[in-house]
Amino acid sequence: MADDRTKTNFRWVGKNTARPDGVDKVTGRARYGDDLLMAGMLHAEILRSPHAHANILSIDVSKAAALAGVKAVITSSDIPDHPLSKPPYPPVINDFHDISRNVMAREKVLYDGHAVAAVAATSAAIARQAVRLIAVEYEVLPHVLDPLDACGPDAPLLHDDQYTAGSDREHDAPSNLARTHAGQRGDLEKGFDQADIIIEREFSSQPVHQGYIEPLACIATSSEDGNVELWTSTQGHFIARGLIAGVLKMELSKLRVTASEIGGGFGGKTTIYGEPVAIRLSQLTGRPVRMVMTRPEVFRASGPASGTRTRIKMGVRKDGTITAAQANSWIQAGAFKGAPLVRATDSFFSAYTIANVQVTTYDVCVNRPKVAAYRAPGAPMAAFAVESVINELAVRLGMDGVDIRLKNAVSEGCESLLGVKYNGPIGLIEVLQKVKSHEHYSAALKPHQGRGIALGYWMHGGGLSSASVSVLDDGTISLATGSPDIGGSRSSMRVMAAEELGIDIDLINTVIADTASIAYSYQTAGSRTTYATGMAVINATRMVIDKLRAVAAKKWQVPVDEVSWEAGLARPVKSTADDIKPLNLKELAKMAPGMVGPIAGHSEINASGQGAAFSAQLVDVEIDPQTGFVAPIRYTAFQDVGRAISPDYVEGQMQGAAVQGIGWALNEEYIYNDKGQLQNAGFLDYRMPVASDVPMIDTVMIEVPNPNHPYGVRGVGEPPLISAPAAVANAVENAIGKTMSHLPLTPPKVLKAIEQV
Amino acid sequence: MADDRTKTNFRWVGKNTARPDGVDKVTGRARYGDDLLMAGMLHAEILRSPHAHANILSIDVSKAAALAGVKAVITSSDIPDHPLSKPPYPPVINDFHDISRNVMAREKVLYDGHAVAAVAATSAAIARQAVRLIAVEYEVLPHVLDPLDACGPDAPLLHDDQYTAGSDREHDAPSNLARTHAGQRGDLEKGFDQADIIIEREFSSQPVHQGYIEPLACIATSSEDGNVELWTSTQGHFIARGLIAGVLKMELSKLRVTASEIGGGFGGKTTIYGEPVAIRLSQLTGRPVRMVMTRPEVFRASGPASGTRTRIKMGVRKDGTITAAQANSWIQAGAFKGAPLVRATDSFFSAYTIANVQVTTYDVCVNRPKVAAYRAPGAPMAAFAVESVINELAVRLGMDGVDIRLKNAVSEGCESLLGVKYNGPIGLIEVLQKVKSHEHYSAALKPHQGRGIALGYWMHGGGLSSASVSVLDDGTISLATGSPDIGGSRSSMRVMAAEELGIDIDLINTVIADTASIAYSYQTAGSRTTYATGMAVINATRMVIDKLRAVAAKKWQVPVDEVSWEAGLARPVKSTADDIKPLNLKELAKMAPGMVGPIAGHSEINASGQGAAFSAQLVDVEIDPQTGFVAPIRYTAFQDVGRAISPDYVEGQMQGAAVQGIGWALNEEYIYNDKGQLQNAGFLDYRMPVASDVPMIDTVMIEVPNPNHPYGVRGVGEPPLISAPAAVANAVENAIGKTMSHLPLTPPKVLKAIEQV
Repeated sequence: MADDRTKTNFRWVGKNTARPDGVDKVTGRARYGDDLLMAGMLHAEILRSPHAHANILSIDVSKAAALAGVKAVITSSDIPDHPLSKPPYPPVINDFHDISRNVMAREKVLYDGHAVAAVAATSAAIARQAVRLIAVEYEVLPHVLDPLDACGPDAPLLHDDQYTAGSDREHDAPSNLARTHAGQRGDLEKGFDQADIIIEREFSSQPVHQGYIEPLACIATSSEDGNVELWTSTQGHFIARGLIAGVLKMELSKLRVTASEIGGGFGGKTTIYGEPVAIRLSQLTGRPVRMVMTRPEVFRASGPASGTRTRIKMGVRKDGTITAAQANSWIQAGAFKGAPLVRATDSFFSAYTIANVQVTTYDVCVNRPKVAAYRAPGAPMAAFAVESVINELAVRLGMDGVDIRLKNAVSEGCESLLGVKYNGPIGLIEVLQKVKSHEHYSAALKPHQGRGIALGYWMHGGGLSSASVSVLDDGTISLATGSPDIGGSRSSMRVMAAEELGIDIDLINTVIADTASIAYSYQTAGSRTTYATGMAVINATRMVIDKLRAVAAKKWQVPVDEVSWEAGLARPVKSTADDIKPLNLKELAKMAPGMVGPIAGHSEINASGQGAAFSAQLVDVEIDPQTGFVAPIRYTAFQDVGRAISPDYVEGQMQGAAVQGIGWALNEEYIYNDKGQLQNAGFLDYRMPVASDVPMIDTVMIEVPNPNHPYGVRGVGEPPLISAPAAVANAVENAIGKTMSHLPLTPPKVLKAIEQV
Repeated sequence: MADDRTKTNFRWVGKNTARPDGVDKVTGRARYGDDLLMAGMLHAEILRSPHAHANILSIDVSKAAALAGVKAVITSSDIPDHPLSKPPYPPVINDFHDISRNVMAREKVLYDGHAVAAVAATSAAIARQAVRLIAVEYEVLPHVLDPLDACGPDAPLLHDDQYTAGSDREHDAPSNLARTHAGQRGDLEKGFDQADIIIEREFSSQPVHQGYIEPLACIATSSEDGNVELWTSTQGHFIARGLIAGVLKMELSKLRVTASEIGGGFGGKTTIYGEPVAIRLSQLTGRPVRMVMTRPEVFRASGPASGTRTRIKMGVRKDGTITAAQANSWIQAGAFKGAPLVRATDSFFSAYTIANVQVTTYDVCVNRPKVAAYRAPGAPMAAFAVESVINELAVRLGMDGVDIRLKNAVSEGCESLLGVKYNGPIGLIEVLQKVKSHEHYSAALKPHQGRGIALGYWMHGGGLSSASVSVLDDGTISLATGSPDIGGSRSSMRVMAAEELGIDIDLINTVIADTASIAYSYQTAGSRTTYATGMAVINATRMVIDKLRAVAAKKWQVPVDEVSWEAGLARPVKSTADDIKPLNLKELAKMAPGMVGPIAGHSEINASGQGAAFSAQLVDVEIDPQTGFVAPIRYTAFQDVGRAISPDYVEGQMQGAAVQGIGWALNEEYIYNDKGQLQNAGFLDYRMPVASDVPMIDTVMIEVPNPNHPYGVRGVGEPPLISAPAAVANAVENAIGKTMSHLPLTPPKVLKAIEQV
């Protein structure tokens, strides 16, 4: 056991080990969402709206239902209704009114791609044919795509029963603005009065897709007795269970969900889409139903990150002290409320010790797919605005980019904007110092090249996790959690269990148990899994160790507190017991069942204390002055990772986030025509970076151990994305000497900026 | 909570409730061994020996391997060898030398149907064709089928490396007799001297098949990293894991086994057959491999109950006191050692308080498939002999059949032959009294009719079990065990959990978790599951209740011991807290996660104390004097069930066992030709009773609660079979006035007995 966070001589923690899921993934053996086959299985297809906004006047499914091979056709009338009972309602995210209507449109369609009806047939081809036979009569309505436009007085209204939270229904009109959120500190006016330089700018960012390789896929089978089993590609099968049971008004215990292997999620698979539809089709047909989205469906109908419009104002004294900061950010929720307001509010200025701050964020419905989480929801677009302005302030002050950040950096004892105190050491200053001392920071640049720097702040979650650890007869270990492995948790969990037990890592096999076989775990998201589920694994493993010590104690007929556990061995503590040979795990595993029964440890926790984490990124770009094309040519990602349990995975998280950030900054956007129809619903036209687009992403892990975790874990998935778009955009600004405030920085935009006098 | 064993006002215990698996089974939705499909799946077929005994000289697989669609052909050389290192070895049942060679013959084939080679191909048809292309050169050897013959000096020897356990390899010859087992008490000679009447008889019984509806079936998928997943129809997926890992020399943690729904087992699915072969084929091909036995394969190659030859001698005083009893029983092990000696030794006389007893049993190898468990292994054939002789003694004494048994019946404080003390109340006397007072016992018989009575004794097991109980957010419950449901354990587990929690049974869903998701459980066998796994469920549920009480205590800010749990409600204990409203499960479930984390309880135990159980059966038969055909016309089964958790399932166990016993007594046997080839490998020729063959089986449950279980459970699956063949045979004896000592009592045998003067 290793409660000493200063310990560094670990056997497994911090070492790279073979990926437990590696072989299955490279051989194609891993079973993803569409890899489960069942006898008698039907194939489902969804009819989707071609309109961005329209009332549904009628749906005629008769021709589709009559097609040979079609076993069921459903519309929203086959899904339980969730009427909105009492507007103005409190701003509940994920209420079932909204989810139900996102799963399948009821009164009206709200975006191009919104599900309208579904078919289950004996083959996918028949199902596709049947979908085309469904006749829907629409009354097309005006639509709105931009969040600021959507807040205008004459904007088309998505929901005539939606009032801004806190508004007065008697006097106010329904609104696309679902709610606002605010954070503040100090006296803004006073702060700006103290400033020598004030910068005000407007920024915008576009919705961007997580771009997971595996489209959403599931198979559902239901029984007449009300029990349902679901196999689905998800970041959280317990979350999926809860959402689906809510939509379909089922008891949780009657829905057993297994998480398939997952081909990427990045936040995008923390909600549900086709699952309730597949289940209803299965319930109506009595057969298993498989539903696999096509790539165009993923783009048209699954949630991207929010696009934003942001107005920001910051003031600084000549010495570099930021005296005041203000931000207003209109954040697209898509068709239903639920933009990541709180996170966005928190993310703008919490890395800095600014005395006077005010942030307001707005949750705005527009005729786009409902947004979903995407690595640090709400934060990258906030960082893009803040970090751009800070860079500009540094330039105006003639101050070093790191120095101005160091001048204002938060440290232990400070508070986030939303009032969470940074208890214990945090790594921001260490990260910034590492940036400054890194060779990349002062490397020479050639003409048309620029360097960007940006900081990322993220307040990690925690939450519910469970783990079970079983000692098998031969001394090997079976380790089960309820957390889908999206970024290496199979590995990090067994690393921590092996470290605790002091045994070879290969003796431990990690599985993700289904919702009926293990206690609740919140989803794998929010960079919480290595921390929270890892804590449950450590607890469960320590329970196992205590039970093994008890077996040895029973064998030796000594009190259990006279037995120690170290390096995989139970030993008597007292020197008088020198003649007693230590017992290893294999020996104890063999004798335990007969003496006391199977040895297992379990833990269910609500973890807290993960706290704040920081990243910084340095990126060099080269601009083609003829075309405006931006090539990232050097990239170094810095991050306080607390403790890297599995460094290669941490490196992968940092690299992957950097590449996603490059795409976010330079390429990615949803292109709609004037009817609000998506024009680039595929990877050819929605251009994510590929390997040849990016340089090697160098990583620098800084380890300032988190005092609230036995190994110092902080969580690593989200911080490296937060700073990436800002760093890239700032590099472009640096190269061309112009401010660049509207993502993505496509060649036409860059060229226009270059050519602007 | 209900530790008061005299309590009878249960809410759920003792009530019949809807079967949780009922709908899935009648709709065909339940997924049995061959119901899992996987992408790229291959089909396996096994080549089986046509000889009862032969050396394998050569195997040429080249033609089979060359057939298009064949992906792998294996023989024993592809399976790790387990040489027999040190004969004479101790008599270890289930050693891997034997199991490995039963899974696939190595040096020689030992029975008609013994596996010799296997093929995996893209279709079952191709695989079958390929199997026929494998050329095996055999040297046919003489064979032996009868256990007494097999012990003769000139008997063909199955294993030239097998010596009788305890024999001296230097001086003794190898033998088909693997080992003997003995139990004794008192002075046999003195006992027989005290007797007024002594009866000596010889009995025989034939191997009988469990007759499960679902043939053995599995699908295996393996990865290059050594991990294997297996889906198989088994009574114990943990046992299967252990056996397979042993045969294939794998680490347990690398083998994840899921128990499919099971279409009957009755003991027959407590071992392994094709699973290691399917896994090896999967390892060699890199693809999932499905293996399904045909019905003829099940008969030829899976284990039936042992056939037996028994010599028995019993002496009785005129007052009915049995003074001495002796039995010698040669028990067929099939091709490999492992007949149920200990159980047989214990079963002969442990129901009776006989002062002088001696029993010896013999484990004999013959050229038949290796025997497997079949409901109370070793006991029905012992009871057949003992109960027949006791009936004859009663007739000779002119004594009532129940009275003679009551005179000698064991009761609390007595001991089994093997020295296990009957602690606490046991129900034998209650059962016998119930028989005597039952209307059936004294009902009139017509000509050609006879009535039989027999007693059954069984010493129940216990052993390793685990359970996990999770409280879900909506107050429903997920209950997981590691025990496959072969006789209603899903129901009995949730009944006990609902009783403990004091909630509606429909709120609880029971699942059987796979080997990686829950701690070890021994197999569902030995009538242990309701007792042992039930105890784990009760423990886990009580842990949940304690955690729920702690949540209420935290909410009310009182010590946890001031919170009680009753009828699904947490209440403050103290009267001063009268103004506190009790909290129900739903309310606590909702508040718990945020306060303390997910609520779950777990238990892993090594249960003991299940103890002795008794059955008695009354059966009337009518004989057709023209044909010797025996028709059972009335049947009443009595049993001390301790406590019937789910009475309809207990009734089903008693009825099913009675019907199996009728088949065992009257019809069932393996018919071999003179080459030792099985001639009736199918349900048309191997005649098990069907509904039209049997009368309604009436059941009388006697409840003498077991003091070692919170609800008094004893276990019910095995006792009702033990007395059944004896009761039927004794009814035939009673009808025709002749002793009948050789099962099955087929019409020719009965006719011959009738016609014998």
